Amino acid sequence: MRVLHLIGIGAGDRDQVTVQAVKAMNTVDVFFVIDKGNPKQGLVDVRTEILAEHVTREHRVVEIEDPPRDRTPADYGNAVDDWHARRAARISDAIAAEPEDAVGAILVWGDPSLYDSTIRVIERILALGRVGFDYDVIPGVTSVSALAAQHRIVLNRVGEAVHVTTGRNLRDHGLPEGVDAAVVMLDSDCSFTALPEWDIWWGANLGTADAREVAGRVADVVDEIERVRAEVKSRAGWVMDTYLVRRSRLS
Amino acid sequence: MRVLHLIGIGAGDRDQVTVQAVKAMNTVDVFFVIDKGNPKQGLVDVRTEILAEHVTREHRVVEIEDPPRDRTPADYGNAVDDWHARRAARISDAIAAEPEDAVGAILVWGDPSLYDSTIRVIERILALGRVGFDYDVIPGVTSVSALAAQHRIVLNRVGEAVHVTTGRNLRDHGLPEGVDAAVVMLDSDCSFTALPEWDIWWGANLGTADAREVAGRVADVVDEIERVRAEVKSRAGWVMDTYLVRRSRLS
Ligand SMILES: C[S@@+](CC[C@H](N)C(=O)[O-])C[C@H]1O[C@@H](n2cnc3c(N)ncnc32)[C@H](O)[C@@H]1O
Ligand SMILES: C[S@@+](CC[C@H](N)C(=O)[O-])C[C@H]1O[C@@H](n2cnc3c(N)ncnc32)[C@H](O)[C@@H]1O
Repeated sequence: MRVLHLIGIGAGDRDQVTVQAVKAMNTVDVFFVIDKGNPKQGLVDVRTEILAEHVTREHRVVEIEDPPRDRTPADYGNAVDDWHARRAARISDAIAAEPEDAVGAILVWGDPSLYDSTIRVIERILALGRVGFDYDVIPGVTSVSALAAQHRIVLNRVGEAVHVTTGRNLRDHGLPEGVDAAVVMLDSDCSFTALPEWDIWWGANLGTADAREVAGRVADVVDEIERVRAEVKSRAGWVMDTYLVRRSRLS
Repeated sequence: MRVLHLIGIGAGDRDQVTVQAVKAMNTVDVFFVIDKGNPKQGLVDVRTEILAEHVTREHRVVEIEDPPRDRTPADYGNAVDDWHARRAARISDAIAAEPEDAVGAILVWGDPSLYDSTIRVIERILALGRVGFDYDVIPGVTSVSALAAQHRIVLNRVGEAVHVTTGRNLRDHGLPEGVDAAVVMLDSDCSFTALPEWDIWWGANLGTADAREVAGRVADVVDEIERVRAEVKSRAGWVMDTYLVRRSRLS
């Protein structure tokens, strides 16, 4: 393969893809789709829709099944690492099977720079040395921007900082001293309940037909968020949510 | 005016605009352009290019001059606040001059949720009560994603957090205890020199013809960054830079 484009496609709305991404997609011979399995079929659907809607050039789609993954490992870092290694080997094989002058692409949810493993997997594939190619990254709209747009909010207060972290970090370590605003991703446990006095702007399945959002003081809206989250999950078959929490100026 | 769209347009490349943004732009009667004055003419140019390239519908462009601004105030928060109030009054007048059924838009650099005052100004205009309208926000690609794409990096280490802050915060307060990775924006002073042992991924005027990037250990690349920054500024007439700094695993 000659070149591989890692293309951010936005976080749920097929029109959230950029013109730059659409132009790149229309140079591609083969799209590699990393199959996340049935539970998140909705995500695969958005990719399929994007190709159908925005790509006029003839192309192939190669699905690469994800290796199985331990979702509750004792050592999180190592388990992820091992899983990436196995995934890299599978993708390397798929790339090796392509003609030398082919242009490939991987469509990445949201933006490739935020809690996404694609860049690391590609670096690993190149380090394995079984295949060689150039690659570039085309940035996309993050689910964080989608969240803020849905609520029509600015993430930072004037001149202030905003922390971006995971539900696991919030639950296990809280926020660093001095952090008054945080965007939390990858939280399947509603870890914001630890901050009852803070304000929250929450959203799930943003950009899709099942998008929902809730805002308010955490203590006041926690029941509503848990209920809406369950509703979204049962309707769509999957749920991905993210939120901004901010220390209230009043508390 | 009936509705106002606040549209994120990406951080420098006219093709970084989303399909959603292009579709919205093609429903617009009047674009309000908040004039940033000559020094950042490049930014106005990108907006003009985006309209020329992507908007086929007939439309008007209304330029609204920015009120003068104190760039080195004693009280930063208050000065910004006062400037926003004056700017809101001017934009409110411009909106009031439009027909009742008009569709308006403001093109916002990068994404409206990150260190941008447009949403706050619009909320202020609505609070003034001299005009009434609906508004929505269309998310865009941030300069942070553009930076990461240029360097082909993920902002966060696996499972870890990333802080987003300003050069002023970094210079005046350092980073909060426990923060090992930070994206810094709005830094005209190269405040990263305070972190000589950290790694940096720096970029200026990303997405434009004058884009430059530098990466390395801060102590090793600080001179290069200062030189390249000056070069970009003299060539383009303006410079905007942002960077990721991360505590080195080796130090
Ligand atoms: C593996 S990360 C990928 C993030 C992605 N690279 C981005 O830029 O948004 C997945 C997490 O992103 C957030 N997320 C992604 N899509 C979302 C959506 N449509 N609505 C709400 N949250 C979403 C959720 O926190 C989810 O757990
Ligand atoms: C007022 S903030 C606006 C940020 C914007 N809303 C965004 O989403 O990127 C301006 C700062 O963004 C960063 N920035 C914006 N455009 C940039 C570019 N093309 N290259 C590098 N940094 C940029 C710089 O740190 C600059 O000081």
